[in-house]
Amino acid sequence: MTQAESKISRTIFIRLDENEDLLNAIKEKAERNNIRAGFFFLIGTVKKAVLGFFKEGSYKPIQLSGPLEIVCCAGNISAREDGELVVHAHIAVGNEHGQMFGGHLLAGCIVDVTGELVLVETPDTKLKRVFREKLNLYLWSLEE
Amino acid sequence: MTQAESKISRTIFIRLDENEDLLNAIKEKAERNNIRAGFFFLIGTVKKAVLGFFKEGSYKPIQLSGPLEIVCCAGNISAREDGELVVHAHIAVGNEHGQMFGGHLLAGCIVDVTGELVLVETPDTKLKRVFREKLNLYLWSLEE
Amino acid sequence: MTQAESKISRTIFIRLDENEDLLNAIKEKAERNNIRAGFFFLIGTVKKAVLGFFKEGSYKPIQLSGPLEIVCCAGNISAREDGELVVHAHIAVGNEHGQMFGGHLLAGCIVDVTGELVLVETPDTKLKRVFREKLNLYLWSLEE
Repeated sequence: MTQAESKISRTIFIRLDENEDLLNAIKEKAERNNIRAGFFFLIGTVKKAVLGFFKEGSYKPIQLSGPLEIVCCAGNISAREDGELVVHAHIAVGNEHGQMFGGHLLAGCIVDVTGELVLVETPDTKLKRVFREKLNLYLWSLEE
Repeated sequence: MTQAESKISRTIFIRLDENEDLLNAIKEKAERNNIRAGFFFLIGTVKKAVLGFFKEGSYKPIQLSGPLEIVCCAGNISAREDGELVVHAHIAVGNEHGQMFGGHLLAGCIVDVTGELVLVETPDTKLKRVFREKLNLYLWSLEE
Repeated sequence: MTQAESKISRTIFIRLDENEDLLNAIKEKAERNNIRAGFFFLIGTVKKAVLGFFKEGSYKPIQLSGPLEIVCCAGNISAREDGELVVHAHIAVGNEHGQMFGGHLLAGCIVDVTGELVLVETPDTKLKRVFREKLNLYLWSLEE
């Protein structure tokens, strides 16, 4: 079985502010806190959103105008084999009529009023992303 | 950076029963367990739902008839500067055809068959909601 | 109040691979790790999905063709009174246009490129599912 175990250490509550880019902000907050592995979820609102749909080796972007509620955004944090930190998250947003759209979290989702991020650190996790050429993606490699 | 750290203490599994109001029930369960900060998620079903969309300083309600599956409901718990506990959550529901609607969790979402709440406590978190007059909202104030 | 408390022990990151059945895989991973109670969430993609809508004592299946992003899948793990482990999760998926569908996670959701499961164990939880004949469902029985 391909898995990596850890204990949870810190839980960090972070407020994201107007005009922050959601994906970039999560990554920067994780880096500043020296988090190398963990998971998170957040709620809030965005001015606009860019969702990705994975197809033939790349994320096809879906552009949405806001304002939109972030109905759900959850993901994980792990490092690539070259040390680069990866935030992998999916997001669902809702408009004024409650209609929802969802996909992979791409850069371009801009915080509106606020974002409330709950970030849970799992230190010393043997969690690594290794490049898979066939998929053009970094997948978890969890073998001991 | 505006953030507050904590360790996780208890995880509490709570069954919500038919006719409980989701938002009120989560708040009451948190209060009864003396939880002042934490996060949670729940699944289950509702008889009807009221979702909010934040616009010009207030939540515009979106009324939905059920029964509906609670596809996702996640949020956080923190206290206002005056001590009042705030449950901030977003919810996504799905109907018989799998069609989804989502937004801010408002009072008026009534449990149908069951609600399964997983509530994670993060004690001693310096997490406080301070009123922002311009927004007419209590936002996290996390400065030390 | 009907609740069960626990401490969190392990967090396990597991990669699910192409053609695994989501529901069966989560259950099997939990069993292999001797997890009797906990919660989890996962993101990834599926080749197809089967969602359930609970109606008159059974889950009406909603069949969806993929590929689809798993926008959100979260749930809990607990044991029935006869010892059988139950994975109870809800799932939301999104298509190429970001359009979403959601409901109860049924067998038949087949992993496409990858599934990234974060499984949190809460050992020694007095969490038991007891059959309720009237509903034709196993609900949490949390009384001490």
